[in-house]
Amino acid sequence: MNFPSKLIEDAVTEISRLPGIGKKTALRLALHLLKQNEAVTEALALALSRMREEVKYCNTCHNISDQEECSICLSHRRDRSIICVVEDIRDVLAIENTNQYSGLFHVLGGVISPIQGIGPDDLKIESLTRRVEEGEVKEVILALSATMEGDTTSFYLSKRLKESGVKVSTIARGIPVGGELEFTDEVTLGRSILTRINYSQE
Amino acid sequence: MNFPSKLIEDAVTEISRLPGIGKKTALRLALHLLKQNEAVTEALALALSRMREEVKYCNTCHNISDQEECSICLSHRRDRSIICVVEDIRDVLAIENTNQYSGLFHVLGGVISPIQGIGPDDLKIESLTRRVEEGEVKEVILALSATMEGDTTSFYLSKRLKESGVKVSTIARGIPVGGELEFTDEVTLGRSILTRINYSQE
Repeated sequence: MNFPSKLIEDAVTEISRLPGIGKKTALRLALHLLKQNEAVTEALALALSRMREEVKYCNTCHNISDQEECSICLSHRRDRSIICVVEDIRDVLAIENTNQYSGLFHVLGGVISPIQGIGPDDLKIESLTRRVEEGEVKEVILALSATMEGDTTSFYLSKRLKESGVKVSTIARGIPVGGELEFTDEVTLGRSILTRINYSQE
Repeated sequence: MNFPSKLIEDAVTEISRLPGIGKKTALRLALHLLKQNEAVTEALALALSRMREEVKYCNTCHNISDQEECSICLSHRRDRSIICVVEDIRDVLAIENTNQYSGLFHVLGGVISPIQGIGPDDLKIESLTRRVEEGEVKEVILALSATMEGDTTSFYLSKRLKESGVKVSTIARGIPVGGELEFTDEVTLGRSILTRINYSQE
């Protein structure tokens, strides 16, 4: 594309660096901002640079925070004996939205992926074992994606945490609520039979 | 969503004001920026605010420009006897990319749309008639969308320009190149028969 303005071209180039946004969408967004009041663009630019410069990560669980410790780790209402291990902050938000969990979190910052060159040392695993060794924790819930990388990471973590004697669990894999049996893939269906829940024990 | 950080929340709010971007996508984009080098966010924020503050509109054709006159209006290679009227800057880019047009442009800034409260006075129509009255122009090509609003605007413009005696044409509506006859809608097919091109005259 031959842009009539270097300013537009620069903006389009920078916007299209974002994931999932191509040149055409970037141009649409830039022209939208031009049509709006100047304050809209100013607010966006300021919010972005402030976020990038000032955001902190919780020293304990590596969740995003405005202070040294995040609001979940500081809260007195949370059950400090359970840690839920997740891949990134979006998972924290997703689990918080369920209103089904009141323990603490630990954000790994990714999963083990040899293809992408991410090994255990690139993740916040050391600080997790340290938290577990401090003694207050009774259970670690592994809430990682049901992918090969997620399962590899879960397996690695469960081995690393074995010595500490803490209970290690993983979130259930099975048929999604509302899902129909005949449309569920074989692997999921097979697993859901193997890891069936005993009604009488429940 | 309950964000653990006000900074993230602000960024997500501002990003999700953009058209076609919801809260979830905004969060994904914000987290992507956090994972990247700080310079990426800085460049984006700077490009956006510079664009909004410094961009100019060509005094003649209202195309986006870095100076008082756009590069197309200033160029000596363009045919100054033809003006192509378009809705916005994206249409200028689209027509320029065809390499089939060497005249000048006139950007209306929208089309007449009573539903959205856009009347003729909200568009750059006055300056178009002024350009035509200056006498150098021999033909005005209306290149507006084939929608009801576009057609209304074309009809209005053709009436307004009638007195000036200039030739007014509109871009052809018909079957897209590569399109199959049986899958073309009836209105388009009907129009393409009515406005058929005489091979012997061509």
